[in-house]
Amino acid sequence: MNIIKAEQFNLERRIEYGTPEQNDAVHSILAAVRERGDAALREFTEQFDKVRVDDLRVGEEELKAAYAQVDSKFLEALRRAAANIREFHEKQKRVSWFDTAADGTILGQTIKPLGRVGLYVPGGKAAYPSSVLMNAIPAQVAGVREIAMVTPPATAGQAGINPYILVAAAEAGITEIYRVGGAQAIAALAYGTESIRPVDKIVGPGNIYVALAKRYVYGVVDIDSIAGPSEIVVLADDSADAEYVAADLLSQAEHDEMASAILVTTSEPFGRAVAAEVERQLESLPRREIARRSIDERGAILLVDSLEQGVDVINRLAPEHLEIIVPNPFDWLGRIDNAGAVFLGPYSSEPVGDYFAGPNHILPTNGTARFSSPLNVDDFLKKTSVISYSKRALLRDGADIMTLARHEGLEAHARAIEVRLKKEGNEA
Amino acid sequence: MNIIKAEQFNLERRIEYGTPEQNDAVHSILAAVRERGDAALREFTEQFDKVRVDDLRVGEEELKAAYAQVDSKFLEALRRAAANIREFHEKQKRVSWFDTAADGTILGQTIKPLGRVGLYVPGGKAAYPSSVLMNAIPAQVAGVREIAMVTPPATAGQAGINPYILVAAAEAGITEIYRVGGAQAIAALAYGTESIRPVDKIVGPGNIYVALAKRYVYGVVDIDSIAGPSEIVVLADDSADAEYVAADLLSQAEHDEMASAILVTTSEPFGRAVAAEVERQLESLPRREIARRSIDERGAILLVDSLEQGVDVINRLAPEHLEIIVPNPFDWLGRIDNAGAVFLGPYSSEPVGDYFAGPNHILPTNGTARFSSPLNVDDFLKKTSVISYSKRALLRDGADIMTLARHEGLEAHARAIEVRLKKEGNEA
Repeated sequence: MNIIKAEQFNLERRIEYGTPEQNDAVHSILAAVRERGDAALREFTEQFDKVRVDDLRVGEEELKAAYAQVDSKFLEALRRAAANIREFHEKQKRVSWFDTAADGTILGQTIKPLGRVGLYVPGGKAAYPSSVLMNAIPAQVAGVREIAMVTPPATAGQAGINPYILVAAAEAGITEIYRVGGAQAIAALAYGTESIRPVDKIVGPGNIYVALAKRYVYGVVDIDSIAGPSEIVVLADDSADAEYVAADLLSQAEHDEMASAILVTTSEPFGRAVAAEVERQLESLPRREIARRSIDERGAILLVDSLEQGVDVINRLAPEHLEIIVPNPFDWLGRIDNAGAVFLGPYSSEPVGDYFAGPNHILPTNGTARFSSPLNVDDFLKKTSVISYSKRALLRDGADIMTLARHEGLEAHARAIEVRLKKEGNEA
Repeated sequence: MNIIKAEQFNLERRIEYGTPEQNDAVHSILAAVRERGDAALREFTEQFDKVRVDDLRVGEEELKAAYAQVDSKFLEALRRAAANIREFHEKQKRVSWFDTAADGTILGQTIKPLGRVGLYVPGGKAAYPSSVLMNAIPAQVAGVREIAMVTPPATAGQAGINPYILVAAAEAGITEIYRVGGAQAIAALAYGTESIRPVDKIVGPGNIYVALAKRYVYGVVDIDSIAGPSEIVVLADDSADAEYVAADLLSQAEHDEMASAILVTTSEPFGRAVAAEVERQLESLPRREIARRSIDERGAILLVDSLEQGVDVINRLAPEHLEIIVPNPFDWLGRIDNAGAVFLGPYSSEPVGDYFAGPNHILPTNGTARFSSPLNVDDFLKKTSVISYSKRALLRDGADIMTLARHEGLEAHARAIEVRLKKEGNEA
């Protein structure tokens, strides 16, 4: 890894997605599914996944059979992780609220769960049981009644689905699962087909076609976000352990060649030690080719003069994951404006959050932590304003309301008030 | 208005936006602004708004001069409305939270305001001072430090901006205002130009070009929603006052030919009385041509057998505004799953909420109340997960984390834990 001065690094690397060809492909897939429903789903599945699918829905038998295929150590760990995730998200629950005025007026917000949510789960190498939990549990905690999961039939010409994914779904209480992936699955969730009823919101990561399809259907349904490549920034001084820091950087780099792992440090010797550790640890990684490309092309060690400058660099990068490994990490927490998740101290290695601690691992990528949040219970709730105005309040405020409406040229708005003031005995 | 059985009405009318030509136009405007900045903004303003603009930013002098042009009754009403809006939104404020475990672990969420928000305000006939308050106040209550407002220079060849808009902005504390509108303004806010620094989120309604531009830049920045035409549904039985109900329907219909005003009622005679009242009141409205088209083409009176059926119809329509005018309206509130704002009882006429009561008038349109909410303080806040894992917790949970990582084929994730367990004296 190269060590450079932070000032020389381009902090604004916002990647945009999709070639015109990819956009066109997605548009025609969406149109075909909208028009021809299940038949189009089957055709695209044969074309892209190379399998013929008869029954789109995964049966109960298949779900049960999956349990026989996963080992018990995995299942126990998954259950403990699920309990932690549930506990953390339960704390985010919110309640409807009202405020009553002495004049009889009541104003408030009802807060209710969405009715039906679609969950996209990638297939192949990116099929992560942990992501099933991270997407499904917040929806369930919010009280969403129906969760429909879609996932592409597994590779290698088989229509089956990864049993680890199925078990994770079952553990999260999902029973409605369809074997379909790609932009065609997003179309089915947004518009509905004979087999798949439309949803109110689609969550879950996918490849570029899935991302473009989600952006296209946004408005017909809600979507979570357009997921980008994964990122970690570690802020550390020379009190940190170079071996730990290097291991954490590599845990990000192994995800994907586009992933980026950046160390921000006040110490050049420490930076050199981390660079050496990265080289040493890289050698023995199964995914060393991916990690190597990520480290070489998107990794960096940024030297800063002070931790204050480091925090400024971080706020501009707005990283998905941020580790702060300095003597008193909480001293710096209040200054972090933009980050998806902050991991404090030497024992909060990123995989602790990726798998187990409880906070969500679906985090804003690609600098979007400036304006978005980890997936959370609020993402599955919606609010409705409640206005119960009393007669007394209307008589008091009617004239002001009419003044404002008439200045906007909306006479019928004014008259809706006026007709009441006249009839209720006050001509204002 | 025609009276029809609710069963005969198409409840799923989701409108989609934008012709290919409009999309292409928006793409080239965005690209031009991204490439050529202010120069492109000036060219498009000359082309679309028919005015030449030298200084894009509105000066303090112009802001002050605007106060001399608005009447004091308007200003007083606006200030009272602003105070109510502020009070309602203050109640939505949230705080960061933490949970501490006995093993030393701390988990939580920090909740912070966005740094910089862009506010789009339409020009011409759709220039509504009330919307300036409704967009700006929630952002300020959330604690957003910078709000940049953009609005097209007024029509009729003048570069000036509607003084009512300027006064509303000033009352809401906005001082950074640019005279630019359309897709070019959205591009400036998303990508930045020489004069306008980029923002983190863009809010505010606009025409089809603005809506398409917002959808396109979504991801580079956050956006509020894609605003559609306005809707009202009134649920009433024969205890309601037909004159009030008709007036409320017309207050929606006058907005726009695409607006829809629907009465859902258990009583056919009441429906006929409302239809007659609509005809009578329509005659004398200044915007009767718009209201007439809206009522004829998109209005309806839907007969239901019971209020229960009425509620079911409403949940499927997911209206932006819902009035419930029946003897005990609160009895029905809990059954309303999908609505932007619910107005209860005869004195809660929609304009009360549009202008004055305090809840936001920027509401989910076009059936999106199934998954979205009125504009609110949360829209200007973002969360960051906080994970401070203790050594004890890591030693306890490390084996589970490694099990999960290895089952996902992510060895570097497992090793980031393993390196710590080894060094901290526990080989798990």
